[in-house]
Amino acid sequence: MSESDSQPREQITVVLPDGSELEVAPDATVEDCAYEIGPGLGRDTVAGKLDGDLVAKEQPVYDGAALEIVTEGSDESLRVMRHSAAHCLAQAVERHFEDAKLAIGPPTDDGFYYDFDDLEIDEDDFAALESEIEEIIEADYEIEREEVSIEEARDRLADEPYKLELLEELAAEGQQVTFYSQGEWEDLCAGPHVESTGEIGVVELLEIAGAYWRGDEENTMQTRIYGTAFEDESDLEQFLERRQEAEERDHRKIGNEMDLFSIQDVTGPGLPLYHPPGKTILRELERFVEDLNEESGYDYVETPHVFKTDLWHRSGHYENYQDDMFIFDVGDDEFGLKPMNCPGHAAIFQDHSWSYRDLPIRYAENGKVYRKEQRGELSGLSRVWAFTIDDGHLFVRPEGIKREVEGIMDMIVDVLETFDLEYEMALATRPEKSVGSDEIWERAEEQLKSVLESRNLDYDLEEGDGAFYGPKIDFGFEDAIGRSWDGPTVQLDFNMPERFDLSYVGEDNEEHRPVMIHRALYGSYERFFMMLIEHFEGKFPFWLAPEQVRVLPISDDNLGYAHRVANEFDDFRVEVDGRDSTLERKIRAAHDDRVPYQIIVGDNEEADGNISVRDRFEDQEYDVEIEDFREHLEGERDEQRIEPDFLAE
Amino acid sequence: MSESDSQPREQITVVLPDGSELEVAPDATVEDCAYEIGPGLGRDTVAGKLDGDLVAKEQPVYDGAALEIVTEGSDESLRVMRHSAAHCLAQAVERHFEDAKLAIGPPTDDGFYYDFDDLEIDEDDFAALESEIEEIIEADYEIEREEVSIEEARDRLADEPYKLELLEELAAEGQQVTFYSQGEWEDLCAGPHVESTGEIGVVELLEIAGAYWRGDEENTMQTRIYGTAFEDESDLEQFLERRQEAEERDHRKIGNEMDLFSIQDVTGPGLPLYHPPGKTILRELERFVEDLNEESGYDYVETPHVFKTDLWHRSGHYENYQDDMFIFDVGDDEFGLKPMNCPGHAAIFQDHSWSYRDLPIRYAENGKVYRKEQRGELSGLSRVWAFTIDDGHLFVRPEGIKREVEGIMDMIVDVLETFDLEYEMALATRPEKSVGSDEIWERAEEQLKSVLESRNLDYDLEEGDGAFYGPKIDFGFEDAIGRSWDGPTVQLDFNMPERFDLSYVGEDNEEHRPVMIHRALYGSYERFFMMLIEHFEGKFPFWLAPEQVRVLPISDDNLGYAHRVANEFDDFRVEVDGRDSTLERKIRAAHDDRVPYQIIVGDNEEADGNISVRDRFEDQEYDVEIEDFREHLEGERDEQRIEPDFLAE
Repeated sequence: MSESDSQPREQITVVLPDGSELEVAPDATVEDCAYEIGPGLGRDTVAGKLDGDLVAKEQPVYDGAALEIVTEGSDESLRVMRHSAAHCLAQAVERHFEDAKLAIGPPTDDGFYYDFDDLEIDEDDFAALESEIEEIIEADYEIEREEVSIEEARDRLADEPYKLELLEELAAEGQQVTFYSQGEWEDLCAGPHVESTGEIGVVELLEIAGAYWRGDEENTMQTRIYGTAFEDESDLEQFLERRQEAEERDHRKIGNEMDLFSIQDVTGPGLPLYHPPGKTILRELERFVEDLNEESGYDYVETPHVFKTDLWHRSGHYENYQDDMFIFDVGDDEFGLKPMNCPGHAAIFQDHSWSYRDLPIRYAENGKVYRKEQRGELSGLSRVWAFTIDDGHLFVRPEGIKREVEGIMDMIVDVLETFDLEYEMALATRPEKSVGSDEIWERAEEQLKSVLESRNLDYDLEEGDGAFYGPKIDFGFEDAIGRSWDGPTVQLDFNMPERFDLSYVGEDNEEHRPVMIHRALYGSYERFFMMLIEHFEGKFPFWLAPEQVRVLPISDDNLGYAHRVANEFDDFRVEVDGRDSTLERKIRAAHDDRVPYQIIVGDNEEADGNISVRDRFEDQEYDVEIEDFREHLEGERDEQRIEPDFLAE
Repeated sequence: MSESDSQPREQITVVLPDGSELEVAPDATVEDCAYEIGPGLGRDTVAGKLDGDLVAKEQPVYDGAALEIVTEGSDESLRVMRHSAAHCLAQAVERHFEDAKLAIGPPTDDGFYYDFDDLEIDEDDFAALESEIEEIIEADYEIEREEVSIEEARDRLADEPYKLELLEELAAEGQQVTFYSQGEWEDLCAGPHVESTGEIGVVELLEIAGAYWRGDEENTMQTRIYGTAFEDESDLEQFLERRQEAEERDHRKIGNEMDLFSIQDVTGPGLPLYHPPGKTILRELERFVEDLNEESGYDYVETPHVFKTDLWHRSGHYENYQDDMFIFDVGDDEFGLKPMNCPGHAAIFQDHSWSYRDLPIRYAENGKVYRKEQRGELSGLSRVWAFTIDDGHLFVRPEGIKREVEGIMDMIVDVLETFDLEYEMALATRPEKSVGSDEIWERAEEQLKSVLESRNLDYDLEEGDGAFYGPKIDFGFEDAIGRSWDGPTVQLDFNMPERFDLSYVGEDNEEHRPVMIHRALYGSYERFFMMLIEHFEGKFPFWLAPEQVRVLPISDDNLGYAHRVANEFDDFRVEVDGRDSTLERKIRAAHDDRVPYQIIVGDNEEADGNISVRDRFEDQEYDVEIEDFREHLEGERDEQRIEPDFLAE
């Protein structure tokens, strides 16, 4: 025995989720750590997370790492299983299509995908692939992890050009390369995976799409197969139902049916054109928030979409954001489309001298911003190049934060409740790296907490998750089918006032630095509009509906009366269906067009000078006085009620 | 005598303003032609216009030229005299500043300027220069025109680098070079000029500005001296008065005083930022025209500011407009900021199939457009890079033009009368080069004429002045100090529907081509806003005023009552002047800030629960019931009256 063996080797330390520390040997793996904590946990370990990255349980840990053990039944273990399901898909594809070349195949939030080149396939092939996958699962192949030298890996991947490209990158980074194999099939893969294919529950293939190699539109377009996997059939069915529901609500589909917007080849990607019905809804949304802003003491401003990039050098956006910006030269100067509205608002504030009596200053703008997303990522209204924020920026005294944040919270809650959205909140506090004094951070966080606590509101405390320039309150909400959405944010900012050297004269006659607050109620109009389309399935509340009332004459003889009735509702968005068609068809058309109310007029109505009213639940009432219905509609509009409720009265 | 001398030489023909033709010898000058018409005209001739260009009377005419004789007392002869005055300025400058280098010195609509390099001067030097100019005029130097060879010209201009640069261009174009001399001084110049300096009336120097050589910001910045000249002192005085008035109304000055907008170095040239008071006025203007559009059956749409340039290849703008566009690449595609809104609206129309029953379709948008003006030309809100048009595009059946144009005329007249602007109209008809059949042109022009005639409206007929793609009706108007402005336009378009292959299905079940109508009521918001600022001198009508009412407490004791009174007017834009100051000062401040109404409250008003009202004409009424004043204000706002008229009642 040498002397070194008799000495205790130096231990390393990992940090567990509860903050406690664990000392382990320097070559310990994730699984070793789990056994160190307890043998039960060791046996249940599927994988690990090291500083947030999902890794194989065989992965060695390192000193100072935040370690989380992933066990069966957790969301993370579902991801591991889906990653293995992606391998089964690739194995099945290569059994059926021997020319196919492998690209990448990761798990996603909803399932997994695998990208292939040289693969001619359509959804008719799914049945065969799915039964092949089932056979692979039934064969219960052991999934083996193997560390391989770069030379060896090159040999094994000689026929896989895309894998070779990835391999050379790993080699250049000096990373350990691993292969995972199952039966006759293997893949260059960092894992983690389940132990054998038999551990995979049920797999379903979903759709085929094109995808650029590495997401770069300069590269080859490959074939992406999407699938999902669950522990059991009932989870899968539930998922497929929700997916079906989401597809029926897809804003691109409804947007097309209702003629809300278009995105055309000739006009460009990520640049929606709003057609009259879509713009009608947008205008109602704009006016709602404009009224709210005006009541709340905001002043509207207007800033250009194009600025000299000097502005973003000053604000700091240039340094961090230039790759996402549309930038061009004019003469010797550089200009760009604005990615944010705040620097423009800071420039307006800065153009003045202010006294403490003038503060708070509250600027609002429906401000269009431009962000250069990858073209492959653009989708409907959810990912676009140009979107409008109902932006607001406040310039406040440090001691005035609480009062302003209270006002903003009231406005946010008003908006979310108007659209019947369930919401939750989180307070994100000072991160390790930050600008601003201890005093201003403490004062600001105290005020934010006191706003939340004075309202007896539940909220999550996300310690250290604030931006480097200030703490924030985030809202999240759920739509009608239970999907979660990022909501409005109230963001304090101690940095921008420094960069723009903003100041006001205090009661002491000295210059002071204001705090800036960024806030939006909808956030992006485009994204909020998209969410509303899907939330309401296009059946918008009366005040938003592009066509609010449609008058249906029972026969041509009643057409004149129909127009006279329509005139009585001329401060609403009303149309007459004057086509030569049956009443039944007209009712169906109005229903398909998602019109909240139909007014039906025939000889009886015309004789009595009244109307029949039908709502979108297909309930109908006869002998309605025109004036009574008008009054109801005014109330339904002004109170922004969610569902047509005349017939519920 | 040779044979050729005995033969009559071939004559050439010029066309006179009345359309008649004049045959003259091929070497005839403008003056020869004038004498040919009559000896009186010959004697009175100052200069000529050949195809619209002002030329010396010594200039030979050419076959087919449109010739106009310029005589004394005409606007054109004033231009000639001012051109000579510019020469006197340059002569005076060179007498006083021997290093000064000459650039260019043309007449303008209001006077003239001359640009110099190597000239250090300020307005204190004007008196000395003006008396030097007076001496030159009194000396009555003959102004002599001389045709000079290029070599000779190079010698004479050896010390004038800018003139040499111009000379080399003329040489390259093969043009005849002329010099004009007066006394010891001479200049390379195409003329025309008066016969002697004694013919110049009175000259006044106005201001000094910087100007880039040839208007290109890449070149040297030179010193430009502006001046003007008139026949006599009284004309000059009238001009200086109007100029003074225009300066006091200058929208840049008032815009700054009222905090309406700013154009900042850091944010970029030609890109105004609207501050809260400015945006308040803009929003009122927007809503006024939005209401008008909605009442008139327009549907709002929204189109991106950025498009793929494919769109403008299709519309034809790319070919004719690309130098004025901001264009940039994203990946392999070319994108640009839109210079016009019409192609986007055509793209929305095209995204549908339409029946004759759906037409007319009327789209409206407050659409921002971008045009790359030379940076040296940018000025306040009158010349900008980005401006918003209250744009409208209609798609109509060829037989429906009249009805739609009638509706548009009603809207335009409504707008112009609301702002108390005197207007006139002109109909511009088919030019020589045009697209579209005889039938469609005749049908369209007939309908436009019948609209104008059915209203008994006076209008100018500008034959052949229409655009190549359709006839138009132009409005012009005058502001409060008698300046003329280009107003709204109704432009028919037979070309864009072809280029976008727009169609609708007619009653005959066949595809037909609609006619497109372009129209704007304000035109550019920026320009209209600028004009309104100057027209009203910042004293906006009550409905537009950023601050409509200011409450002035007589002492601090009345501050509480002042706020209670302000609350009674909370649907107006009302402020309380709560500063510790005298009533007199508060009244002056409100007056300076151009607030239409002041409410003054002291102990008497507080005891009686009423108010005193003061308007911006400094009239005041005591013992006013709050409710009476409220009612009045509602009327004044809703009827958009021009001047505060509560005290006139």
